[in-house]
Amino acid sequence: MSTMKVAVSGTSRSATRLDVSVRGFDFVIDEPPALGGADAGPNPVEYVLAGFAGCINVMVHLVARERGTTIRSLSVRAEGELDTDRLMGKSTDARAGFAWIRVTAEVDAEASVEEVEEILRIAESRCPVADNLGAATPVELVRVEAAAAV
Amino acid sequence: MSTMKVAVSGTSRSATRLDVSVRGFDFVIDEPPALGGADAGPNPVEYVLAGFAGCINVMVHLVARERGTTIRSLSVRAEGELDTDRLMGKSTDARAGFAWIRVTAEVDAEASVEEVEEILRIAESRCPVADNLGAATPVELVRVEAAAAV
Repeated sequence: MSTMKVAVSGTSRSATRLDVSVRGFDFVIDEPPALGGADAGPNPVEYVLAGFAGCINVMVHLVARERGTTIRSLSVRAEGELDTDRLMGKSTDARAGFAWIRVTAEVDAEASVEEVEEILRIAESRCPVADNLGAATPVELVRVEAAAAV
Repeated sequence: MSTMKVAVSGTSRSATRLDVSVRGFDFVIDEPPALGGADAGPNPVEYVLAGFAGCINVMVHLVARERGTTIRSLSVRAEGELDTDRLMGKSTDARAGFAWIRVTAEVDAEASVEEVEEILRIAESRCPVADNLGAATPVELVRVEAAAAV
């Protein structure tokens, strides 16, 4: 077991903007005007999809290297579809989040199509983000007092 | 039903770095040296946690406004614990992703502790990212030919 703890902190700058800090990196999350924000940065679900795409990049290269396959180039696209009714508080049976998430990889490798598809299969099965989105994870949101926070 | 499609695209710049583009915003995902990267940006799972924190910011303010409660300030921290054994390809029963994810909110509001906790409860229940992490979502990774990509 090789346990790793990961943590990020953010300060709310508006009802939609969160300024995030992690290991010395700073970035901004916001919503577009259509969702009530000032469009100062990508929105929360875009960052989640980006994290998924980034994880696939890492995993594809890791698995390819293990198998002695050279990746010449890789582009990754992540997309999903969301019904905003629950988010907006409307009475609905729809879930709050993405109904589905699809990642497409355009891979140029020194390998057959079959080998590339096998690499993708293994990469997905070992990808932390694919696991956390594809399977349930215990999640909690709790209030903390000022003194205990961060 | 108010369906919204969300998509992000990334180009691999190294075995760990993905340059991401979404609606005119550009940002970099990388891994720290300990995980084989050049530390050019936050890593994939940090972006996922940040997206969760950002979503909680939006939802807390949305729910508070619906209830006539003023939020004076809000800080959000998101953390999780990950066993890297599966990611690294070791034989293991451990899951690939976070075993748990915890978001803590430090809320200063013109409201009682009970009202703040009720706002958090509702915010979590309507938060897309809480749903996609807390419950299973159909996820797929597929290879596309160059012509069909992006």
